Amino acid sequence: MATIYHQVGIKAPINDVYNAIATTEGVTGWWTKTSGNPETGGDLEFSFDGHLVKVKVTANTPGKYIEWTVGGNEGEWLNTRICFELDEQEHQVMVNFEHADWRQATQMLAHCSTKWAVFLLSLKDYLETGIGKPFPHDIHINHTVFN
Amino acid sequence: MATIYHQVGIKAPINDVYNAIATTEGVTGWWTKTSGNPETGGDLEFSFDGHLVKVKVTANTPGKYIEWTVGGNEGEWLNTRICFELDEQEHQVMVNFEHADWRQATQMLAHCSTKWAVFLLSLKDYLETGIGKPFPHDIHINHTVFN
Repeated sequence: MATIYHQVGIKAPINDVYNAIATTEGVTGWWTKTSGNPETGGDLEFSFDGHLVKVKVTANTPGKYIEWTVGGNEGEWLNTRICFELDEQEHQVMVNFEHADWRQATQMLAHCSTKWAVFLLSLKDYLETGIGKPFPHDIHINHTVFN
Repeated sequence: MATIYHQVGIKAPINDVYNAIATTEGVTGWWTKTSGNPETGGDLEFSFDGHLVKVKVTANTPGKYIEWTVGGNEGEWLNTRICFELDEQEHQVMVNFEHADWRQATQMLAHCSTKWAVFLLSLKDYLETGIGKPFPHDIHINHTVFN
């Protein structure tokens, strides 16, 4: 098993950080167009130019922790868990991120690791400036179609 | 043991990508002020506002692979390996990055994972536009002193 780890510190009320991850409108503002039910046990769909990533919300504790478990037809992402833990500090909210339970540490994992950093900085911008860089306005990290 | 993985694709001649990682002038352009001997077996120092990260160059294969092993007094970084593998493709050079052999997956690892993504995108900019964002001009990922 292999895991991607990231951490960003965001200067925003913890409730705003939580809502940016726990609502479809929020996630649409920094990752990609999102629909579905973000409550625990609900199903969410993330749309990338017609390709849908489907997850089940396997944990949603307000102000604390959100976890999505990937389903659908997702190849290397299948059954991986995408986790956001929030830690309120004096001057910021730390977002401790994991994309866990990859079966192997592949080049796809390395690609997604860099890309998650890009999107977590988009989450930070979305909350601190009001403007994120969700797909397809995200920063490109290579020169292939899958960038 | 835990490992940070990243991958960026850079549109530049492979020799330029290699030199950006294998020379002190190169690393100074995208990570931080670097001095020392970048040949295999040499010692390098990376300066962050007076704090020096000291490494030994444990591999340097031109156009292929560079590895630094962290020494000095580096706490969680001690004995970790920072590795850059270059893969020349038709339209770009893929840089497969690992920061390997962390003893534990701590919050420091998560912080450094996000920060390495920032610096690898700085490497990409340095090679594609001529202007990187080395320390202290790097993108900040939180609101502490160690950002």
